Parts: sequence; C-alpha cells; structure tokens
Amino acid sequence: MIYLDNAATTKPSAKALERASAYVTEKYYNPSGMYKEGFALQSELKKARSVLLSKIADESAFELIFTSCGTESDNQAIFSFARRGNAVTTVGEHSAVTAAFHELKTRGVAEPRFAPLEKDGRVNVQALLDMIDEKTCFVSVMHVNNEIGAINDINGIAKLVKQKNPRVIFHCDGVQAYGKIPFKLSKDVDLYSVSAHKIGGLKGVGALIKRKSLQLPPYIIGGGQEGGRRSGTENVFGIMHFQYAAEEKFATLKEDFATLQEYRELLWDLLDKEVYTRLSAKEGTPYILSVAARGLRGEILLHMANDKGLIVGTGSACSSNAKNRYSKVILACGHDEKTADGVLRLSFSPQTTKEEIVQAAAILNEIGRELARKMK
Amino acid sequence: MIYLDNAATTKPSAKALERASAYVTEKYYNPSGMYKEGFALQSELKKARSVLLSKIADESAFELIFTSCGTESDNQAIFSFARRGNAVTTVGEHSAVTAAFHELKTRGVAEPRFAPLEKDGRVNVQALLDMIDEKTCFVSVMHVNNEIGAINDINGIAKLVKQKNPRVIFHCDGVQAYGKIPFKLSKDVDLYSVSAHKIGGLKGVGALIKRKSLQLPPYIIGGGQEGGRRSGTENVFGIMHFQYAAEEKFATLKEDFATLQEYRELLWDLLDKEVYTRLSAKEGTPYILSVAARGLRGEILLHMANDKGLIVGTGSACSSNAKNRYSKVILACGHDEKTADGVLRLSFSPQTTKEEIVQAAAILNEIGRELARKMK
Repeated sequence: MIYLDNAATTKPSAKALERASAYVTEKYYNPSGMYKEGFALQSELKKARSVLLSKIADESAFELIFTSCGTESDNQAIFSFARRGNAVTTVGEHSAVTAAFHELKTRGVAEPRFAPLEKDGRVNVQALLDMIDEKTCFVSVMHVNNEIGAINDINGIAKLVKQKNPRVIFHCDGVQAYGKIPFKLSKDVDLYSVSAHKIGGLKGVGALIKRKSLQLPPYIIGGGQEGGRRSGTENVFGIMHFQYAAEEKFATLKEDFATLQEYRELLWDLLDKEVYTRLSAKEGTPYILSVAARGLRGEILLHMANDKGLIVGTGSACSSNAKNRYSKVILACGHDEKTADGVLRLSFSPQTTKEEIVQAAAILNEIGRELARKMK
Repeated sequence: MIYLDNAATTKPSAKALERASAYVTEKYYNPSGMYKEGFALQSELKKARSVLLSKIADESAFELIFTSCGTESDNQAIFSFARRGNAVTTVGEHSAVTAAFHELKTRGVAEPRFAPLEKDGRVNVQALLDMIDEKTCFVSVMHVNNEIGAINDINGIAKLVKQKNPRVIFHCDGVQAYGKIPFKLSKDVDLYSVSAHKIGGLKGVGALIKRKSLQLPPYIIGGGQEGGRRSGTENVFGIMHFQYAAEEKFATLKEDFATLQEYRELLWDLLDKEVYTRLSAKEGTPYILSVAARGLRGEILLHMANDKGLIVGTGSACSSNAKNRYSKVILACGHDEKTADGVLRLSFSPQTTKEEIVQAAAILNEIGRELARKMK
C-alpha cells in the first residue's frame, strides 16, 4: 500500500509511541493529583509545552495551550476574538475556520468577510487588506493551504494587517505548516493553531499558540486546566507523543523539505501531461502536489487507485453532496468546474520513498489513461 | 504503590490497549478518507458508538456523539440548551457544569440556579423542583457525585422535572456512573455525558449521549464529523480503546459493584473511628469512600500517605487557593469547615485488591494518629 494522503493524516511515529508508552502503563495519573506522581506529570506537560512552542516561537513572547484538535484551536481563536464589527478571512481556509466564520453571521456577532485567492492558492493580499477597516476586530489567514499547498507569507501579511489596523487580532491556522515549513512566528501574529496528527502525532491532540500579552478566554470551561484556558483532564499520553513526534519532525525539517521538493517534482515529471494538469505551484509546500485530470472524475480515479494499492485524496471532501461537488478552493483559484471535478491531492511525508513515488506515477498514468479511454 | 484515586482517573486497560494498538500502527487513516481504508474506519466508529450506547440506552431512542472529554460534553449540552430564562442545577456538580452555569450569567443568556444537597450528597429533589418554573429551559443533575459518591435517582428526578415543566431539556453528567452503576436511560433524560478515562479508557475521549429527536447544535464546528455535531478528525485509537475498555467494564459491572461494596465497607471497618468520620453513605457508589479526619488537614495526610506509597484524593481540588480551601460540595452537605479541611477521598477500581484495602487502612490509621499527636 502506497499512502499519499498525508495531508489528511499521518502514520503516528512508532518511535514516539515507544517513548510515550509509559504514559498509558505506569504514569497514568491525573496531572491534577496533588501527589508526587501528579506533580511529576505537570512538569512533563510543562516541558512538552516548551518543546513544542520553542520550535516556532520565542518563549518569552508566546505560550501554548493544549486542545483536542486543530478545529478546536481554530474555533477557540475565532469565537474568542471575532466578537463585533467584522472579521476577515480567505476563501481558501479549512472548514474549521470557514464554518466558524459563517457561524459569526448566524449568531449576529460579527460580519464575516472572505478575501479571494490568487491562481496558485495564496490569498490575494491587496484584496484582504482592502476588506480591513476600522471595524475589523479579527483576521484569520491560513499558513499552508490544505488542498493546493500554497504557502502564505504569514509574518508579512500579519505586518501589513497590523499597519492597516493595529487593533486587529491576527490568527493563523498553521496545521499544514507546523513541523513542515521553516518558520518562526513574528510579533505581529497573535494566535497560531497546530495539530499533532499531521506530523506523526496522534489524532485528538492540538494546540493553540498565543501571544503572552493576549488574554485568551476559555472555550471549554470547568476544572481550570491549562491555566484556566482549556478545561478537561489533560491528554497526557497524546501530548507526550506529540512532543516526541515533533522533536523527530523538526530535527530533519530542512532535509525533509528539500527531499520532498525533489520527490514532488519527480512525481510531476513522471505524470502523463496529456492526462494531468498541475495545480500546485513550485513555491508551495513540498508536502502537497495537487493535480487535475481534466474531464475525468477525481473520485473515480481515487477508487481506481485504491484498487491498485495507492491511496490519494481528492479536492472535495464530500462529492456525494451536489452542492459540495466542487472544491470551493479549487474554483477560487480560477479553475473551471471541469478541472475541479478531476482533482487529486497527492500528499507526502518524510516516510514516503522514491520507489513509492515512481510506482504511484505509474499507477496514476495507467488509471488516468484507462478512464480517459472509457470516457471517449 | 497503592492507587486509591480512581475517581480522578483510572489506569488504562492493558487488554484494550493491545486490542486497539492496530489503530496507531496499521489503521492510522483518516476516517473521512474516501477510500476503502477510510470507509472501514467509519464503520468501526459506528460499531463503537453502538456498543458504547447500547450499554445504557435503547439505541432506537438515543444516539452517541464522540467528544474530547466529559467537560466538553457537559459544556456542549449546557451552552446548546441553556439559552433563555433560567437553568437549574445543583451545588454538588463537577466544575465542568458549575463553571458553565456561572458563565451563563456572565454572558447574560440565562439565570443559573443551584439546588441544595441532602446531608449524604444527593440533591434535595423538592428544592430542585421548587426552583423550576415556566421560564426554566434546562436542568442538569449529576448521576454520581465525584467527591462524596452519592447516587442521584436520575430517571426519577428527570420524570418529576418533566412533570413540572415538560419543555425543560434534562441533562445528566454521568461521568462517575457510566460503567460503574447499573442503569438504563429513561425517556425523560435528554442528554448524558460520559468519559473514557474514568473506566479504564484513555484521557482525551468522551461522549455525549442524546435523545435522537433532540436537535443538538455543534459546539466545535468545521469538517462536519459526528454528523455535524462535533467536528475535528475523530480520535479513532482513543474511541476504539474506549469501546474495548467499556466492554470489559460492563461485562463485570454487577460483580464489581458487589465486590467494591464489600471492600469499601471493609476499609471503613478497618479505619480508626477516633481519627476518621465517614461522609459517604452506604447507598452511594461503592467506587468512592469519602472520610474526614476532623481537625486535621487532608492535604497533609495526602502527602504523608504518598510518602508511604498510598495515593488518595482530597475533597478540595485547589487548597493553595484560600477561596477554594474548602470543598463546596462537602460544605453543602452540611459539614463544618473543620470537617471539610480533613477530607480524604478514597476511590477504587475493579483492579483494587483486598490486600491493598487492608494495607491502605493500616497506612491511613498510622498517619492519622501520627498527625493527631503532632497537632496536640
């Protein structure tokens, strides 16, 4: 089985599982326990927080709160700070952001505004800035687009946003960037969401990184865990595994980046250009190559690939729903419906091998040609 | 090490870990993946949902939504339905409910009302009913009190509540009851919160059981998982482990109940009555024995026990904070501050052995007498 849907989720690091296993066998205590074993877990959580934060931020200026997933992190950021006037985001965001922005309108708390994309999937920065006015309280721009892989210059965009309106709270969904893209948070970014399972961690673990001086209200309230900003017994095993997985991931971040750039280009080189059109720009994340088999159904190709032992993603998450047949992101990049229909997302991890890339290309060419013949 | 803080968290089932391990090694896929491996996980999640639900409810009338913890389940229930007029709960609730009720007032959405307790920790049902009027939209009563172990007759209370006002949505925090107390949900209960890590499951997994005919709004929104009621990639490993742990727990529920009743009474019999007063009633859960070393500090006893290899809980979660020095629940049962200061919560699991009970009693007697001598 060749797995090229790593943008959806990654295989948990086996090494990290081994290192973290003590937290489900011996160190299973509640970190709120007022005995030595509880205190010990508190300090391990503190260390995990520090390790995960220090990889992308200055610890004197930022802090990290554990959540249950990237979606929760995005929701907490949005519902905490988009509370009046208007809030601006992009049409390229993950549904965790998009759905929350639409909810702002439903609840009548703030007017959501959606900035358009460039052809390569990056936000149109000038259009974004034009939407920001004196009533804008919140701006959210994703770091790496999960469908097409475009990288937004988050620090640059945050700086321009703050120049336009310094009172804006700037949030970034960094789920597809953390541990994959060389990056450090600038002082202009207030909030940054990350997720464990996109980098070899476990599902059910996320974090929200915040500027220390920013007062973050809790979204899930109760026992006062995470300094009162996220209640509920800490998922110690998941958090420790996240730390270990991130340590592995960041240790080889630059080499992985270079290798996957090479693999992505190799895959593109090997694909039949009579079947496939490239949607992802060279400047995008090396972890994602989005292609379109124009005139063919991506969903059918996905199933054909699946039968041949190749797992890939599509551009649209829910093609059974006619309304959602076409990915809004792909259309927002200026592609037509025929292109949007044929999208395949090929996404990689450092575990992906060159042999798998070569085999994947052969399978994709074979099924693409086969389906094209049938469609004639 | 003797672990008697099982009401805080339990040791994850090793057998369930073994059974669930495939979900972090081979079956690590995203259940939203539109390939065979994703669909297979969807049907496994469906089965887990059915197994967990069927243990306490009629599947034709109820359904189950996975969340990240009991606190999230409580929050979702409360913030979804306590939206106008007043909402009634008890002073004995877990902070996940109490804090959310106070938040209702802060946000100005509903007036929170708190019903008093009986001496044994059960809610004073008549006082609860007296607080319910035509403007009451939501009532929340916990099943088993986490500090003192009192069991509320949830089906009986829900019936009386609905008789008083049929439009009320009735919620129950069942975190300390699920898998421990023989019980089936009646049609009068609308919502029921459970948590995995209290019954040998993992931290980071909970569920909200709801009456099927009740429209539950999402609290965490995005990709539309859990039928749109809880977004975020499903914690497949944690959920499968929850299923397996619950299967074990429910298989021996009645025997465990009887054994732990015996152990709880044995422990009480062995305790020095000149030092300890019993707070938990015989009719309470056999999983918790709350005692008070009147005139002594429970926190000091906890540390002394810890040094001798015995882990116990206290009545108050945060004694470093003067405001929270005394457990509100213990005071609400009518005990004075001197009693509240000396509370120890001894909580069991089916893994607790008779030998551990005997040893724990000896340690508690020894440290109780020692501290009493020092205080003279």
